[in-house]
Order: sequence, then C-alpha cells, then structure tokens
Amino acid sequence: MIKTDILIIGAGPTGLFAVFEAGLLKLKCHLIDALPQAGGQCSEIYPKKPIYDIPAYPEILAGDLTDKLMEQCKQFKPGFTMGERAETIEKQEDGSFIVTTNKGTKHQAPVVAIAGGLGSFEPRKPLIPNIASFEDKGVEYFIKDPEVYRDKRVVIAGGGDSALDWSIFLSAIAKSVTLVHRRNEFRGALDSVEKVQELKNQGKITLITPAEVTNVVGHHKVEAVVIAQAKNIEKEFEVECDHFIPLFGLSPKLGPIANWGLEIEKNAIKVNNSLDYQTNIPGIFAIGDVNIYPGKLKLILCGFHEATLMCQAAYQIINPGKRYVLKYTTVSGVDGFDGTRKESPKAVVKAID
Amino acid sequence: MIKTDILIIGAGPTGLFAVFEAGLLKLKCHLIDALPQAGGQCSEIYPKKPIYDIPAYPEILAGDLTDKLMEQCKQFKPGFTMGERAETIEKQEDGSFIVTTNKGTKHQAPVVAIAGGLGSFEPRKPLIPNIASFEDKGVEYFIKDPEVYRDKRVVIAGGGDSALDWSIFLSAIAKSVTLVHRRNEFRGALDSVEKVQELKNQGKITLITPAEVTNVVGHHKVEAVVIAQAKNIEKEFEVECDHFIPLFGLSPKLGPIANWGLEIEKNAIKVNNSLDYQTNIPGIFAIGDVNIYPGKLKLILCGFHEATLMCQAAYQIINPGKRYVLKYTTVSGVDGFDGTRKESPKAVVKAID
Repeated sequence: MIKTDILIIGAGPTGLFAVFEAGLLKLKCHLIDALPQAGGQCSEIYPKKPIYDIPAYPEILAGDLTDKLMEQCKQFKPGFTMGERAETIEKQEDGSFIVTTNKGTKHQAPVVAIAGGLGSFEPRKPLIPNIASFEDKGVEYFIKDPEVYRDKRVVIAGGGDSALDWSIFLSAIAKSVTLVHRRNEFRGALDSVEKVQELKNQGKITLITPAEVTNVVGHHKVEAVVIAQAKNIEKEFEVECDHFIPLFGLSPKLGPIANWGLEIEKNAIKVNNSLDYQTNIPGIFAIGDVNIYPGKLKLILCGFHEATLMCQAAYQIINPGKRYVLKYTTVSGVDGFDGTRKESPKAVVKAID
Repeated sequence: MIKTDILIIGAGPTGLFAVFEAGLLKLKCHLIDALPQAGGQCSEIYPKKPIYDIPAYPEILAGDLTDKLMEQCKQFKPGFTMGERAETIEKQEDGSFIVTTNKGTKHQAPVVAIAGGLGSFEPRKPLIPNIASFEDKGVEYFIKDPEVYRDKRVVIAGGGDSALDWSIFLSAIAKSVTLVHRRNEFRGALDSVEKVQELKNQGKITLITPAEVTNVVGHHKVEAVVIAQAKNIEKEFEVECDHFIPLFGLSPKLGPIANWGLEIEKNAIKVNNSLDYQTNIPGIFAIGDVNIYPGKLKLILCGFHEATLMCQAAYQIINPGKRYVLKYTTVSGVDGFDGTRKESPKAVVKAID
C-alpha cells in the first residue's frame, strides 16, 4: 500500500504544480497517471508545440513546460505510479481513501485531488478482431520504453506525428521498422515527413502505403501481421514481426472516475469554485481541465491557481484546527524534502568606514 | 481624454498579464500606476530577489518576471500613465467610467480593473517641516529618470538597498553624490554595501554617518540641505546641492480607491470569486493582491488566474450578447495589435514516395 498526504490523479501540469504547492505546506504527494510519462497532454500530444499563454513565458514548448514543472517540484520528492489508470476508490472509516489502479496498485491518502485533464488518454485501436488477446504480447499502443524494441522487428501503423517520430526514432535501434498507413500522404511536422522519406530512401524504414493491417498472427505472442494493400484489398500478405504498434491517436475518456459518485456535468467534475475546488465528496478535489464551475476556462494557468487553493484546503483536512500562515517564498525560501534549501541571498548589516 | 476598453489600475504582474489576456480577446488596455515604472512591488521593492513559486519557474528574479510579462503583453500595445495616482472615478450615463489621476489626466473605459496590489506605494517622508514645498523642486522620493541628475549635486538619505543602489548608479553621472544615514551600518545586499565602500574610498561618494538631514534650504528650489551629525546634534552644517532624495522605503496605501464606494474588508476590495472577481459596482473588477474573498491567497499566480477570468467578463460587458469561444494559443496562435503573429509551425500533409 502506497501512503501519502495528497493522492493526485493525473501527472499533467496542474498535478505537477500541486506537488510544489503541497510541498510548501510540508504535504507529500503521489501521482497516478495512465500515460507512461509525466506531463499529460503537453508531453503526449504536443510536446514540440509552443504555448503562448503561460504567464511570463512569451513562448514555451509544451515539453519544456513539463520539464520546468518537474524541476520545480522534484525537491518535494513526489511518488509516481505511471502507466496505470485509477480504477476504484473506497472511503475508509478513518476518512481516508484507498484508490486502486487497473493493475491492482493500491494507494491510501486523506485527500484525493483529481487533476485528470480531459480524462485518461485511451488509444484509438484498429478494428482487428483478435487484437485484445495480443495486447502486452507484442501489441502496444504507447511506447513506454524504447529499449524494448532494440534489435526487434517492428511494424508501426499510423499517419501522424507519433507514427512518423517513432518510426524515425526506432529505425536507429530496431532490427527493422515497417511503417503502414492507409494513405500515401502523412500529416505532421515537415521535417518529420522529410526525415521518413530520407530513411525510406536509405532502406532504413520500409514503407507500405496505402495499406492497412487487417490481422495479427501468432502463438501466445505477435509473430506477424497481415497487411492488405488498399488498391487490392483481396491480395493480403504477411509481414513477420515481433511488435505491432498502432499509433492512431489518443482519445480522452473520463473513464472509471465517472463512477466514483462525483457530480458530473458536461463530462467534467463539478466543484465548489467559491472556496477550494472540492467536489460533492468531502476530501476529493478536482483541479485543472477536469473540473467545471461557472465561468470555468480550461487553461493551464487556471489549473495552477486551483491546485494552490486545493492545497490550502488539504492542509486543513490533514492538520485540523492548525492555522497556516502564508509565507512568501521570496522571504522564507523553500525547504525541500530532500534536504535542499533555496533562499534569497540574505541582506547584510555592515558598517562603511 | 484617454479611451480604452479595460482601464487597469496598477501595472504590477497581475495588471500586465491582464493586458495579454485582454489582447487575446481583442480588447485594448491602458494602465495607471503611481510608480514610475511597470512591475509594481517586483520592480520597486525587490527586483533582485528570487521568487520560487511562479509556476514553471523554479527560480526567477522579480525584475526578470516583470521583463517577461512586459515582453508577453507588448504586442497588445498597452498604454501607460505612469507616476500618477488614480484619484477619482465617475460613472457616465453610457455606463462607462472616467478615472482622473492626481495630476488631472483623464481616462475613459467601459471596464475598470483594479490591480492595485497592496495599494499605491507612498514614500515614507523625513520629518522635515518645509519638505512638502520642495517636492518636485529638487526633492524627489522616487527616481523616475536618472538623466535628471546628470552633472548635478545630489544628496541621498537612507540606509537600505535603494539608497545604496542609487548612490552607486548616480555616482557615475552626477557631479557629486553625498549619502547620509543615521547609522554607520547599512542594510542591503553584500555587494552593494561593498561597492559603496569602494566608491567612498575612491572619493566618488561622500559618506556622512551617523547623521540626519534636518532641513532643506532654498529659494523656489533646493539649494542646500542642513545635516546634523548624530553624535553632535547641535552642530549642524549645510551641504549645497541641487537635489535631495530621501529613500526611506515605501508604504502601501489603498489611497483614494478606498473612497470609490467599493466594499472594503481588511484593507482589500471584496469581489465575487465564484464568478468573475467583480466588485459590488458592476463594471469594476479587483484582481490580484488588492482583492479579498473566502480563501484568498495573495500570490502572483492567483492574480494571473483572476486577471484571465476578469477579461472574459469584460468581454461580455463590451460585447453584450456576443458569444466568445475559447481558442487555445497553441492551436490558433496569437495576433498582436502591432500586426505581429505568433503561431505554432503548421503540420504539413505530404506524400512519401
């Protein structure tokens, strides 16, 4: 059982900043996220795209935003349960909650903050009847650890940035990379498309277009995929491989959280914005894009504010009756849980003679 | 008469970010501030001190924060009335407001956003009976334009960072700099104290300590100050000078805004935090440290959120009945009022053959 002060569901920008604000109040955090890495949409969907409305950043790449937030909160040593989806929640007699993931990992905390963004990102899956039986046996919808593919034969399907970028990346370490797409045209960053063209010309990527993977073949694990050329759908052929990675995009779903007894409106969780972004269940908060209230804007900067006010309320739940006096970081510095201390250079009192 | 869409009172971080958010909604802003430069406390009180709780900045100097916010909003061409204090407000028949400063400058706008921080910073003045009659005639409490002091004889009083830093700065351009302080010890950044020591040794700053300026002498304008050595208070002497600059710190006061008919609580302006940070007077908002509501935290990041929601409400007042659909800057880019456009590199659709 993983125990913490604030259990944060969702490791996007809002969840990461909550770790920092909680740390200032000496509260520990643990994060659960269905994606393999922190950053939420910023890392998974548009890491290389600039955002222009983060305060005091005239421009910042979404991936860099994640890096900065990770750096800012790391001194407060958050725990992470990544690549797992929060599935069930049970209230305990002592008022705390136990949250269990789809892989059975259990977490206990007196406060739960749902920072789930648009929901957990579920991969769009190809319409192949038996595909579910090959999942985690050679069929993957995310690339968690590229090293898995070293010296392996990989078939990637898709026509967007993910398919292009992972084909490029894996062509350097895999035994072979085959990219299958139902059109000749790819949609993505110009330099990615050009790079794939170049790797194809060099024989480092095998391109099969317009075509579709129509079946997966294997005993216990993937051994080959069946590909149909779009022009000639009857003429199917097999390509031997160890991995089949369909990258057809991610679609956000509120998922199991929708069944936790929280008030839901327009696929988002209703909160009390006039105080602390708490939901209808005391002790459970919702912050960032996942919540809704009158005048709600789904902006990262609003998530930062909501996370900060949530932490104050969490402090009261965890330390009942204790009065917290806000300290300014400029004045008081920041004490990390790892023993580090940041502080403003102290003024001296010194005679001039 | 200066006309604008949103008249912002206070050019600190919250006011500056409001310019950016308003710009995204195609609303123009004009700012009034009692200080000579933008940035509020960050620029005036602690420009060289680090802040640790600006989201995605593990550390940023307060002065750099101001610079970044100015850069972020400059494309929306805000107007500035600096060094003047908003004094009176009058509601017009058409629903707009006219705000007049202490120097008589008039501004008209349908929406007023008070982003006044802790209030307008009033200088602490020395207890010299006739000093008021010399204000703007050689006595200044802020340095608005250092060029005013070129080749002049300047007497500075004070023992903190402002007195140290301006003595250092002006010693390079003024004819002479005399620094008067009631103790031998100065309180400030170590390198500032050491630099003053060095300049004193070089004869570039004349130091008179422990001492006080007890009088100002002159016809129509400052011609000399009277200084009493603290050890020998009876033995006063005159130092001829063109300018006397007492730098004894700033003390924030809500000031004339307190008489605008707004609901005040704990020296702050009450707002409706459950919607848009509007005050009890429709069309007047209060954002950032100047406002108060249940759970209020006087943090810069909260001001950013409040500014953003205020702009949405301002849009509705200025464009009644018009529906605004939130656009993400990552997707839609940013169109400046100066003709500039920022946008994410476009995806291409391109065949690979």
